[in-house]
Amino acid sequence: MQTGVVIGTVVATRKDERLIGNKLLLTQPVNINRKPVGEPLVAVDTVGAGIGEFVIYTKGTAARYAANKTDSPIDVAIIGIIDSIDIYSDVLERE
Amino acid sequence: MQTGVVIGTVVATRKDERLIGNKLLLTQPVNINRKPVGEPLVAVDTVGAGIGEFVIYTKGTAARYAANKTDSPIDVAIIGIIDSIDIYSDVLERE
Amino acid sequence: MQTGVVIGTVVATRKDERLIGNKLLLTQPVNINRKPVGEPLVAVDTVGAGIGEFVIYTKGTAARYAANKTDSPIDVAIIGIIDSIDIYSDVLERE
Amino acid sequence: MQTGVVIGTVVATRKDERLIGNKLLLTQPVNINRKPVGEPLVAVDTVGAGIGEFVIYTKGTAARYAANKTDSPIDVAIIGIIDSIDIYSDVLERE
Amino acid sequence: MQTGVVIGTVVATRKDERLIGNKLLLTQPVNINRKPVGEPLVAVDTVGAGIGEFVIYTKGTAARYAANKTDSPIDVAIIGIIDSIDIYSDVLERE
Repeated sequence: MQTGVVIGTVVATRKDERLIGNKLLLTQPVNINRKPVGEPLVAVDTVGAGIGEFVIYTKGTAARYAANKTDSPIDVAIIGIIDSIDIYSDVLERE
Repeated sequence: MQTGVVIGTVVATRKDERLIGNKLLLTQPVNINRKPVGEPLVAVDTVGAGIGEFVIYTKGTAARYAANKTDSPIDVAIIGIIDSIDIYSDVLERE
Repeated sequence: MQTGVVIGTVVATRKDERLIGNKLLLTQPVNINRKPVGEPLVAVDTVGAGIGEFVIYTKGTAARYAANKTDSPIDVAIIGIIDSIDIYSDVLERE
Repeated sequence: MQTGVVIGTVVATRKDERLIGNKLLLTQPVNINRKPVGEPLVAVDTVGAGIGEFVIYTKGTAARYAANKTDSPIDVAIIGIIDSIDIYSDVLERE
Repeated sequence: MQTGVVIGTVVATRKDERLIGNKLLLTQPVNINRKPVGEPLVAVDTVGAGIGEFVIYTKGTAARYAANKTDSPIDVAIIGIIDSIDIYSDVLERE
């Protein structure tokens, strides 16, 4: 899974009907310091994530399981809201 | 899912027969300001998207569900036409 | 799907037996102006593509459907030969 | 599979219930010299990996098999702890 | 599929039990001139590849088919040993 921040919402009236009922959240992939990495994705929300929240998202078939819509066109879903991350970055220096 | 703009059509007479009946749209991945990101993809249209439209596309197995052709060689499909995106980009600065 | 040009053939005597009977074509991913993008892939041919042809290829599970070998180790397949692409690149400037 | 180092833990109270019972480890992809490559991932632990350990992780459907949760939203899992790597890098020079 | 060179072996005593019996080969992705591209992967061997050999590898679900372990955490496998590649690179210049 990867970390992101919800930065907006996407409105699409004409869309695959299997997306109806799912909120589409514009999700910016970020690193652990909340700095943007790459371009925003359009993710389905499965945990009630709000604007500005630091989230965990998943991709591919995993996203369809997250949304409980295994035969849908979903390929990105938000599956958790991050409370905290404990980082021990010095471990990269030790050998 | 990701955002793109339809920039053309692809004609291929000799192709996998399971692609027959699907419009092949040249789709440029773009960021939320409609600026190109990477190279165009060949996507199957499932929502009646036209040239110049700002769309949502999906990849992998999700694209075969979108096209209702689960046993086909499709791996990219357009699944929605974007009406609007509401962006709250200042959320990346707060912590 | 993505666009490529067939630039060669790969010979491998010792290989997974499920690849027997499939031509392995060295396929250079290209952009719509036929300029190389990234490194060549080893693709299974499913449409009779020849050296120098401008093709559409697919990746992942889609490639196994293309080859009609769903339980094989194939993950890239050529599925169409491009006759022409109509591009309306000015649509990226309009908003 | 790819190589990484466990650099932290992620706490998320609000999350997909199928993640309950799985430790979420912040995993930094690294090269064979343990130098960071790209951004950290959130991986499910399946082998009792600890902070600072040099691990093998897998992605996609493979990660759900690793966790023995095939219908879950998991897409990255740690599946081995590396004891040693024997490298013969001179083979790249020979032809 | 992609091309690589086997540059080493990986030893992991603590690992997913479904990996037992599979040799884990450190595989450097290379271009057609055997120059490294990106970072080494940990691949399961399915064709008896040795150190220094120029190989074809596959990723994702295809790798589990290659290893005949469809419910395992494998996501990269070596599936062929390259005897020769015939390249007609001038085809990229013609139009």
